[in-house]
Parts: sequence; C-alpha cells; structure tokens
Amino acid sequence: MAAEPLRIALAGLGTVGGGVIRLLTANGALIARRAGRPIEIVAVSARDRGKDRGVDLSRFAWEDDLALLAQRDDVDIVVELIGGSDGPALALARRTLGLGKGLVTANKAMIAHHGMELAGAAESANAPLKFEAAVAGGIPVIKGLREGAAANALTRIYGILNGTCNYILSTMEDTGRDFADVLKEAQALGYAEADPAFDIEGTDAAHKLAILAAIGFGAGVAFDQVEVDGITRIRAADIARAQALGYVIRLIGMAECEEGGTRMFQRVQPCLVPRSHPLAAVDGATNAVVAEGNFSGRLLFQGAGAGDGPTASAVVADLIDIARGDAGPPFSVPVAELEPLAAADGATRTGRAYLRFIVADRPGVLAEITAAMRDAGVSIESLIQQGQAAEGGEVLVAMVTHEGPERAVAHALELLRESPSLARPPLVLRLID
Amino acid sequence: MAAEPLRIALAGLGTVGGGVIRLLTANGALIARRAGRPIEIVAVSARDRGKDRGVDLSRFAWEDDLALLAQRDDVDIVVELIGGSDGPALALARRTLGLGKGLVTANKAMIAHHGMELAGAAESANAPLKFEAAVAGGIPVIKGLREGAAANALTRIYGILNGTCNYILSTMEDTGRDFADVLKEAQALGYAEADPAFDIEGTDAAHKLAILAAIGFGAGVAFDQVEVDGITRIRAADIARAQALGYVIRLIGMAECEEGGTRMFQRVQPCLVPRSHPLAAVDGATNAVVAEGNFSGRLLFQGAGAGDGPTASAVVADLIDIARGDAGPPFSVPVAELEPLAAADGATRTGRAYLRFIVADRPGVLAEITAAMRDAGVSIESLIQQGQAAEGGEVLVAMVTHEGPERAVAHALELLRESPSLARPPLVLRLID
Repeated sequence: MAAEPLRIALAGLGTVGGGVIRLLTANGALIARRAGRPIEIVAVSARDRGKDRGVDLSRFAWEDDLALLAQRDDVDIVVELIGGSDGPALALARRTLGLGKGLVTANKAMIAHHGMELAGAAESANAPLKFEAAVAGGIPVIKGLREGAAANALTRIYGILNGTCNYILSTMEDTGRDFADVLKEAQALGYAEADPAFDIEGTDAAHKLAILAAIGFGAGVAFDQVEVDGITRIRAADIARAQALGYVIRLIGMAECEEGGTRMFQRVQPCLVPRSHPLAAVDGATNAVVAEGNFSGRLLFQGAGAGDGPTASAVVADLIDIARGDAGPPFSVPVAELEPLAAADGATRTGRAYLRFIVADRPGVLAEITAAMRDAGVSIESLIQQGQAAEGGEVLVAMVTHEGPERAVAHALELLRESPSLARPPLVLRLID
Repeated sequence: MAAEPLRIALAGLGTVGGGVIRLLTANGALIARRAGRPIEIVAVSARDRGKDRGVDLSRFAWEDDLALLAQRDDVDIVVELIGGSDGPALALARRTLGLGKGLVTANKAMIAHHGMELAGAAESANAPLKFEAAVAGGIPVIKGLREGAAANALTRIYGILNGTCNYILSTMEDTGRDFADVLKEAQALGYAEADPAFDIEGTDAAHKLAILAAIGFGAGVAFDQVEVDGITRIRAADIARAQALGYVIRLIGMAECEEGGTRMFQRVQPCLVPRSHPLAAVDGATNAVVAEGNFSGRLLFQGAGAGDGPTASAVVADLIDIARGDAGPPFSVPVAELEPLAAADGATRTGRAYLRFIVADRPGVLAEITAAMRDAGVSIESLIQQGQAAEGGEVLVAMVTHEGPERAVAHALELLRESPSLARPPLVLRLID
C-alpha cells in the first residue's frame, strides 16, 4: 500500500484499548484496503506502564504524559479511551483538537457534558471529532442517524441503551429472581461494575440518549434536560405483573421532538414494552435503538452494546471514516447552527401508566387508592391486589391506567402522598405502544 | 445558504421519483443544513409528460431524451429511478458516469448485473456512484456494512430482503390462509405486482443479497452464484407445522464467507426461523438484515423495505453524502482490488432441514420414505403424518432432520425420485439457528 498511513495515538489501555489493538492487528490488511491506507498505532499511554494487558505494546512508543502524546509529530489522530466526563480525558480532548488533530472517543460522559464545546473546537480547527463508540457499543447508530436517516425530520428516538440494566431486567424476567440478587450475579459475571450506580440509576443511558437526541433533532446536547429514573425499584412482582399483561419491562431512553420541533422531551425510565414490539425481544446485554423519521418510517438498529470487540469495532469504524476523508460536523450540522430546544414539560404528556403500590394489609386501602385515582381523573384499565402478603405483611397493588395525561397520575399520587396506608413511595412506569 | 447547491436530474417519475420530490420539498431546509448546501432538482425526465403524478413539476426543466438529461450543464448528479437491469436505465448510468457526473440509483437489478462495470466507470471518472435505496428500502444497510461495520471481517450476512414475500408469509401465518389466496389479496392491496414472479420466485431478494455480499466480503458482485428458491410452494400446512415446532417461515437471503474467505456461499430460500430469533418478529413488508462481524458480533438493521417514503429517504441520504463530500469506492474497496470469490458448494454444507412430502394415501409410504432417509444417512429428529387427507386423497408427511450434511438430504431425495408414492416433488427448507 503506497498511501500514507493514518497514525494513531491510543490513550487508555483498558478493555477497549486492548480491543482496538487486537482489532487493528487482526484485520489490518482488510482495513487498509477499505480505508485506502493503513491505520497504524504509533504511540500509547496509560496510567501503569508495567501492567500486563495481554497485548504486545513493544511496537508502540510509550508516553507517560498525555500532553506529550497529543503533541507528537508522528500522530495524526488521538483515540481517547480513558473515560470520565472531565479530568485527564477532557484535558487531552481539548489539547488534541487545539493542536488541530482529530479525536476519536468512546467517552459518552464527556460528549454528553462537553460535546458542544469539543465539536466547536473541532470545527474551528477543521479537525474530525467522532464518537460512534460512545453510544450503543458496536452498533453504528450515530452514523445511522447522522447519515443514514439524514434526509428525515426525526420525531422520536428511543431504545435500550444500557446493557447492564437490560441484562438484569431480562434475567429477572427469565428466572423470577429479585433485583438485588441478579445485580450481585451480574457483578460476579462482569456485566455490572463494582459500583453499579451509573448504570442502574440510568445516568449512563441518559448520556447516550442526550447524544442521540442532539444528532437526531439538530439540537444542542441537553443532558441536564433528561428526566432520569433507574431500575433499582423494580421487583420480581412487577415483572410478573407485566408478563401477565403481555409486556416486558425494559429501561428505555426516549427523546421526542414536540410542538413542531420547538421543544424536546428526553426521559430514561423503565417502561412496559408489549411483547410484539421489537424492543421486547432484546435480551441480555444487547442494545437497540429505534428512530422514527417522517419519510423513512421506523428504523431499528440492534447489536452488542458493550464489550471490547464491539466497542473497538465502532472506534475503528470512525478511524476508517477519517482515513477515507469523511467530512462534516460532529453533530451533523455545525455547532453554530444547532438550535437548542427548550425542555418539553413531561407533565403535559399523555399515555398509559403502570402504577404499583406497596400497602399495609388492612381494610379500606384499595378504596383510598381508587378514590384518589377517581378524584384526579385517572381511569383504571386493570387492577390487581396480589394475594400473598409481600415482605413484612405488606401487600402489592398494581394497576394499569387508560390513556390519559401524566399530570393526572401525578395529581393522584400527590393526593396519596401523606397516606399512612402506603408503606413505600409508589412505582410509576409508562407503557410503550 | 451561500454554498452552491447540489443540482439533481431525476430520471423516472414513478412512486419513488414522486417520493424524492416530496421529500426534498418537505425537508429541504433541514437537508441543506445537514448537507452544508441545498439539494435542488433542476430537471426531470419520464416516459409520459402528460401524466398527472400529484406533484408539481413546473419548477423543473423537462427532458424527453435521457441522454440530454445527463448532458445538461446545470446537472451535477443524476438520480436513476427508471428500473430494469439493462435498457434505458443502464444506458443512462453509463452515459452519466462517462460524463464524470455522479449517479444515485435505486436499481437493484442493474447493480446486481452491472455493478462492477459501473463502479469501475465511477472510479475512473472519480465520480460518486451510490445505491443505498437498491437494498432494503429505507434501511441504511449498505452504509451499515460499508462504513459502520468496516472494521470487521464479516462472516455471514443474512436477512429478510423482500417485503412482498414477507407480507405473504406473515399473513399466511396470521390467517392460516393458503399462498394463492394471500397473493391475490397482496396484489389487490398493492403489496405485490400484477406480475409477481420477480418477488415470489426470489430473484429480487437475490439481487439484493448479491449486492450486500459484494460489499460485506470485498468480493465482486456474483449474482449468478446465488442459489434461488422462492415461496410459491409453501403451503398453509407447512406454516402450521413450523409453528408447532416453534418456528416461523421467512424467505431468507444468506451469504457466507467460507474456507477462510476463499469461497462465498449465497442462497435465497424459505427457512424455518426460531421464534426467539430477531428475524422471526419481522412481520409484514418489513425488511431486516443481520451482519456478523469478527469484532462487532451480530448487528441487526431493520425497517421498511419498500414504499415511496422509505426509498426516497435512502436516495436522498446518498445525495446528502455526496453533497458533504463523502468519498470512497462504491463497493467499499476499489473494483481492481475486489477479490472475486469462487462459489462455495452448497452440498458440502451442514444443518438441519425441514422436509415435506405430499404422498399417496396407501400402506408402506412412510416405510419407503424413512428407509431412504436411513440409507442416505439422514437422521430424523421429528416426523408427522398429517391426519386429514390433503387435496385429492393426498397426505402430508413433514419431518425435521438432525444436524447433518445437505448432501445426505439430497441423496435421500434422489433415492425417492422415482417413487410412485410421491405425488409431488418434496419441499426442502433449512432451519436457521
């Protein structure tokens, strides 16, 4: 191959960094053919030089100092795989783009918090900034929205964006076991981090959703506007109820363009998904994203949401695009032309809801709950009070509402807020249709 | 927008042509923002100028002569929506690329038959040639393979590539009705052509499969190597049997890279797909493609496989790519570097098969069939002889084999070929696992 190689510096040698090295080694020849030139790692950096990572690093220059890594004359593109929204990752990203070099990153937190600043810097420097690996692992969904669906006004983007949560929920579904138990197993198997908060509380999915919404709607990244709820309060009994109704429970990130494109709604929340919906069949650590365009109709992208191989596949796809001369602003339109959208008010939305109460086992509780629903104008489609008492003499009451305003449900819960009958705060999930 | 527009000539004003005009009208402003410049139709051509197409053509120059359309000084890109593998479409494509202008087409037959020649012409002229709309309607699957999965050696590409067949099969499944009946309805509803042969005999799916295989495996397009079988012999009873076994029947196009990438296997055939497989949930006219990469794992792309809106969405996505300066060879690697792969021998493959016989209702038939299986070394996993007689005193015998060589099944059928017990040629479908 006579063409000049694209020369890469790799910052961060964890799971994904190792995957990128293995991928470029295994598939180097075909990548050079497709990219029109070889893609070569020339230098690497990580915290601990001595650590055995199971890959041969002797071919690459080592830099202890990230700043020097970006500055090397023999480096065209920096691949940032350090992680963290700020700190060394952000410093490296700023320095790289400031030097007019390209940046490829898998760092969803950094893009969700600083994507606009970094995209602006990339555009000023006329340098590429790409982050396919930041959302949904190996699935080319950023490319799918930014390019594949580019002819469409997208109205809605939603999907399963966190593999850990999906693994936990689908395992709970398959085994009937409870959340804490399955989480512990997921940690032992490496599907969940020792500190799982980022995943199970929905933050990680919210980062990804905010990035997809920005690209899909031509808005700025508005991570602070995402309503976030995690899966920690889902019980085996909720999953059983959902199943009896023909639904599964999935953590869904959903973004909608509202009011003729003037407002944006973003929410991460466990939802009841009908068995017939493509997302209901998404099991284990798989991710899937649906995008609805005004001409394309419903597009679905599905695949592995994490793991060294899939994530490395997305990182290197970005590098191949750069090697081919792929151009264009990171968020599809230039940062200066993005139209920041105000947050839509979730309470003005309508839909069906699943409500679950843990109540004291005594007379009049059901009457109290149903009266609150009536007074708030919430119409109940089905209700079940579970026969056997739950832990500590508590009883589970689950209901599904008819289509109606979310505001009415919130009002009903407000009416019940001081009730001594409720042993815990109620759980509210939405139904996707 | 100060930037120069990308100027388009549209050849063919059928359903898709009308869709492209409507799309560029409805979404013009956002497309200009994403593409960095406006995309403008300047001239059109079709057979009948007088026909009412429900769109305003007065803004565009009209050319009766396709040759003059391509030659116009005010045209940068020709969009070919005439159809047909040869004839005026091919002449226009050759002329356009010969003039050094870009070509966007939805024409799967032309690309399957002449894709290599046209890609070579495009590369010589340094002109873009793009055909996202030729495969799977609005789903960006060519982009997904060519760019999104570019870092991977793909081992297998398979999916549902013909919406007409999928509509017929899933309607047969839902209603229990027979093929001819559902086909007639599909024609009345516009889901099937008046002459449906191209669709129901598998040719259309084979065109698309050959294009995907070429891009995914870096091979030349080898349409002639595709083994093709359609859905015309599938009966309601087959679908019922499949359902009882936990499967659905789908027309699947499958391409595999075999023997370390030296041979390619391509087949279009109705297959039994397990209910738990993502393709089993693909109903109606929807298309879906699975690609398996050595790092990405299994990727799934799903959406509308036809229709004016989705197809126009793919056509205009190609135009936006071109407006953005997207570069690179049409088949991912330059034609000169594509490595034509010899056809793999289907008979050397292994798998499980569904065999269905229509037999005369008389003693000894089952013994004859099972003896042939034994003599050919085919191991039977399950067998059912249907109680009620089928049409004309005939009886249906259906079986599923254990995993084994396709060659053995072929041998068994050869042993039975002259048997007077078989009222019709047996049906052989494969199971996908």
